[in-house]
Amino acid sequence: MDDRLAKQLEFIREIDREKLIKRQSYLTDGKTREDDAEHAWHMAIMTILLKEYANEEIDVFKTVTMLLIHDLVEVYAGDTYAYDEEGKKSQAEREARAADKLYSLLPEDQGEYLKSLWLEFEAQETPEAKFARTMDNFQPLLLNDATDGRAWKEHGVKHSWVMKRNQNTHLGSEKIWEYANVLIESNIAKNNIIDDRNGM
Amino acid sequence: MDDRLAKQLEFIREIDREKLIKRQSYLTDGKTREDDAEHAWHMAIMTILLKEYANEEIDVFKTVTMLLIHDLVEVYAGDTYAYDEEGKKSQAEREARAADKLYSLLPEDQGEYLKSLWLEFEAQETPEAKFARTMDNFQPLLLNDATDGRAWKEHGVKHSWVMKRNQNTHLGSEKIWEYANVLIESNIAKNNIIDDRNGM
Repeated sequence: MDDRLAKQLEFIREIDREKLIKRQSYLTDGKTREDDAEHAWHMAIMTILLKEYANEEIDVFKTVTMLLIHDLVEVYAGDTYAYDEEGKKSQAEREARAADKLYSLLPEDQGEYLKSLWLEFEAQETPEAKFARTMDNFQPLLLNDATDGRAWKEHGVKHSWVMKRNQNTHLGSEKIWEYANVLIESNIAKNNIIDDRNGM
Repeated sequence: MDDRLAKQLEFIREIDREKLIKRQSYLTDGKTREDDAEHAWHMAIMTILLKEYANEEIDVFKTVTMLLIHDLVEVYAGDTYAYDEEGKKSQAEREARAADKLYSLLPEDQGEYLKSLWLEFEAQETPEAKFARTMDNFQPLLLNDATDGRAWKEHGVKHSWVMKRNQNTHLGSEKIWEYANVLIESNIAKNNIIDDRNGM
């Protein structure tokens, strides 16, 4: 087997581990925690279906590829929960090291392309990265809503936390953010999210 | 919320169930069974990396989309194991009914597009469908090889079964099929696949 194919297959085998990285969100059965690979798959399809709501024109395949690979660094760096303030302090450095290690498994042209897509996602500056971030924030909101807020309730999540996490959700799609707000309000009304808007 | 977005979100919520459909393959940890969503995610990235080995030029995004959605009918029809001869008899009819039900959740333009992509995958005639099938056969082979043939051994899988399942693998990529054969021979040597080539 030639060296190029060997490198590609080693990478393909290594990223299988993403299927074992559990997130905080529960699937719509209300009891199984989602993993990173499932999350990426779901958002790839969401992007194909919801692209018409992007604020700016996006390259849909680039956005899908970005979402498929955006969590791969967690294969080495682990998942950092959106509301884990301690873990988030070291997250950038851990993930940068993980990216160097992971993407160097691939032939150089492919490793550099995927790594640049990940960096583009992280920088949140291009239309594709902004829309991908919108999906990355909106998808767990959908799952939380479908499971009567189980993960929110387990972590005592407050309205201010959700709004901080979603401060850039509107940048990819005003339309999706508008609907996200409907979901957030509905879950405040059901006490799934703690309402701390009056200094509570 | 407008009716179009409501339909899209209903579909997006419904397909979450694909994450609960277990396959026979084990992940590289050797103990967790893979689910359909993980399988689709893995093959989407494989397609992006291995497209250069396609026999014919392919539209990569179309192939990726096809693979992301190709098992969605199992949300209603269930998974049929590749070596379940009884289940395979009713598979086509069960899946056709499931496709009608599932894709009618979407706005008509999107439902028809995804359903046509699924039918194209099933027909195995276009370059994209042939390459997608190659991925669909090759990916479990990689997982089986990485887990010392656990699923093969549990089902007493014979060489002739593997060859029958893979009769069209070469149509998408001669190069991948060549390497798949190396893996198959290696697993026969390790007794992970039963060698029935001499009438055994």
